[in-house]
Amino acid sequence: MSSTEATKNNQADSPRIVRISDFKNQVGKEVRLQGWLHNKRSSGKLQFLIVRDGSGFAQAVVAKAAVPEAAWTVAEAMGQESSLELTGRVKEDKRAPGGFEVDVTGLRAVQIAHDYPITPKEHGTAFLMENRHLWLRSPRQHAVIRIRHAVVKGVRDYLDDQGFTLVDTPIFTPAACEGTTTLFAVPYFDEGTAYLTQSGQLYNEANAAAHGKVYCFGPTFRAEKSKTRRHLTEFWMVEPEMAFAHLEDAVKVAEGLIVSVVERVLETRGEELKVLERDAAKLGHVKSPFPWLHYDDAIKLIQSKGSQTQWGSDFGGTDETVIGEAYDRPVVVHRFPAAIKAFYMEPDPERAELTLSADILAPEGYGEIVGGGERMSSAEKLQQRIQEHNLPEEAFRWYLDLRKYGSVPHAGFGMGIERLVTWICGLEHLRETIAFPRMLYRIYP
Amino acid sequence: MSSTEATKNNQADSPRIVRISDFKNQVGKEVRLQGWLHNKRSSGKLQFLIVRDGSGFAQAVVAKAAVPEAAWTVAEAMGQESSLELTGRVKEDKRAPGGFEVDVTGLRAVQIAHDYPITPKEHGTAFLMENRHLWLRSPRQHAVIRIRHAVVKGVRDYLDDQGFTLVDTPIFTPAACEGTTTLFAVPYFDEGTAYLTQSGQLYNEANAAAHGKVYCFGPTFRAEKSKTRRHLTEFWMVEPEMAFAHLEDAVKVAEGLIVSVVERVLETRGEELKVLERDAAKLGHVKSPFPWLHYDDAIKLIQSKGSQTQWGSDFGGTDETVIGEAYDRPVVVHRFPAAIKAFYMEPDPERAELTLSADILAPEGYGEIVGGGERMSSAEKLQQRIQEHNLPEEAFRWYLDLRKYGSVPHAGFGMGIERLVTWICGLEHLRETIAFPRMLYRIYP
Repeated sequence: MSSTEATKNNQADSPRIVRISDFKNQVGKEVRLQGWLHNKRSSGKLQFLIVRDGSGFAQAVVAKAAVPEAAWTVAEAMGQESSLELTGRVKEDKRAPGGFEVDVTGLRAVQIAHDYPITPKEHGTAFLMENRHLWLRSPRQHAVIRIRHAVVKGVRDYLDDQGFTLVDTPIFTPAACEGTTTLFAVPYFDEGTAYLTQSGQLYNEANAAAHGKVYCFGPTFRAEKSKTRRHLTEFWMVEPEMAFAHLEDAVKVAEGLIVSVVERVLETRGEELKVLERDAAKLGHVKSPFPWLHYDDAIKLIQSKGSQTQWGSDFGGTDETVIGEAYDRPVVVHRFPAAIKAFYMEPDPERAELTLSADILAPEGYGEIVGGGERMSSAEKLQQRIQEHNLPEEAFRWYLDLRKYGSVPHAGFGMGIERLVTWICGLEHLRETIAFPRMLYRIYP
Repeated sequence: MSSTEATKNNQADSPRIVRISDFKNQVGKEVRLQGWLHNKRSSGKLQFLIVRDGSGFAQAVVAKAAVPEAAWTVAEAMGQESSLELTGRVKEDKRAPGGFEVDVTGLRAVQIAHDYPITPKEHGTAFLMENRHLWLRSPRQHAVIRIRHAVVKGVRDYLDDQGFTLVDTPIFTPAACEGTTTLFAVPYFDEGTAYLTQSGQLYNEANAAAHGKVYCFGPTFRAEKSKTRRHLTEFWMVEPEMAFAHLEDAVKVAEGLIVSVVERVLETRGEELKVLERDAAKLGHVKSPFPWLHYDDAIKLIQSKGSQTQWGSDFGGTDETVIGEAYDRPVVVHRFPAAIKAFYMEPDPERAELTLSADILAPEGYGEIVGGGERMSSAEKLQQRIQEHNLPEEAFRWYLDLRKYGSVPHAGFGMGIERLVTWICGLEHLRETIAFPRMLYRIYP
């Protein structure tokens, strides 16, 4: 608890406000706790309140004999999610949810709530999504968002420590990076139409020429009319890009990043993984080095397991699952055919029909979490590609400039945060990994 | 230099690739440097190359007698922004740009560039903005982006250390937070129109009820038809929100945050501030406590300096400059009239025509950097306000739920990153604080 929050709250005669996450340092002490009633049961002259304060959950025991009558009455009157403030002594109790218990000496309601819509019984997903603003308070959702925070922090710290400079790339873009069919279009004053970014990569390339090693990290948008559990219309992506670097360099950074983030979650979010009943042992396998699998061999692998996917095609979701399940840690699938990759991919010098590209697939069937590769560094070849792809050359003038003025080999990748969190948390669907998911049929609340 | 970047680059017989930012640990050693030619001058049998590698700038001295003939010829041939790789011995030299010099032993061009558009002479802003993808390489722009990174990192670290949980709020929103006139509208499948967020605050309030102390940090959008130096259509904002908190608590966090971020920039970005010729001593005054100025007194202050602004109106840009210049550190102007504030502001219990709100104005005339306050916690009053403001009640159903189920006093604020960086860097215009600024007439590159 910082001193700041208590400025007006603290009264001279009352104990210090303490957050549940700090209870471990408060055992035996009298504290003040501000929070919400998550659950309640009573047993004669005792009432057991499960209180949450945003930092955690703790059990508070109200004994009729130990509190003023008004406090007992308030405890009886409060429905689920009533807001409250209580005082009491903290004690350790391994059996209590969260591991601590408070023997209550005083209790007041801030606001008494009744008929909270999300009860301990089972609810359907549509109902929960419609009440997402409240569903976020549930232990599982609370745990997922805390893990997401640890992931974001872990990503940023890792890249910062490796000497990358954060350079935010624009959301409004004048042209499409990979075709216009999945772009959200926005009327933009007299400039015509702006598109919401699908990737900061092209801009990253300019930034890498200015800062050497850069990353952007922000929301990206895809107007895909698909309703699968692996798609959101709005999702967050981190995209590192490095000058004077090749495919192998980019994959090494991605590998280091994933290992470091998983380690951080295991170290700092063990409680949350337990709430989610995630098998942490499986995450313990995520160590360097990751196996590498050539696209040719990946096709052979999935065909041997019955896939109809032919050489030259992209993998389907089931193919990714099959490949991912063949390993106990993420696998690097490399050298995809040029025909199924973006125009800016550098060709494999040994086989021109392939690209210096790689996807990293998560284990346990969670699919692609990273996609990247080496970018084309020749101005002439790039111009030819832009023409072949029927892209508007004028819009890419600045992008071609990067090859005219000090072109260097460079490489990078994008990692989708929601997919990473889905895998780490062991979830069924991406929608639980972001506070207010946006999907084909969902922009409320 | 991480080992990863060198995987394919390193050859057994050549020295280690080192970044200029690491030269301080390499004095006397032979290194390999990869970068771009920023500037060049020659003096008979010596050529002085200013090389940048993204991490910094350093002088490389090519002596005709000390290098193979091919290297000398390459040095002669390279125009500004040619990409190159050189080997040489690092020595300290206080007079050299960056403080280090390399005595070159080998040099090769990666790509020879000619006619780089941005020469050392003066260029007009329109031209530089049109070439923003290259302008970013210039020392001033490079310094600003590095300071921005330190600011972003400083903000996140401070809030994380204070126990805040990052909860990303949505970019697509179904309804307007503060009126629709300055919103970007996006056609959204069968759901009709989505609007690009102007603030994550309403969502933050739901998240604060789930996590106690939260922040969001992402791009926000304002379709304002204004062409001033203080406006961008796309800008980044951090917005902390706290449950069980009052106006004073929110301002305390904002103050601690600003002090901490300025300290971090002074500690870690001294070189960059020098490049910008920023008077760091002025930033040294930014210490707690910040002065508080009641709105009534702020009006008296500006009127005494000749302002025509009347009680009940918002400040103009000039008014903010006048108020800010009266102090050597940021000033907290508090309790603005309800009539000029958003519908969700908690009224001052002592004077109902005022709100429990505060803006923080930067010194030296840089204007507002923070705006925040206490939010209305009563469901009845809030519903009345929504009706008075003719807002669509159905769209705010979820927001009213937050008052029905465990309402608590809560407060927060928003801090605009570009405004903060503009002030810290001492810039004239917001547009230099973001890599690819978006303005009324600018979405390219």
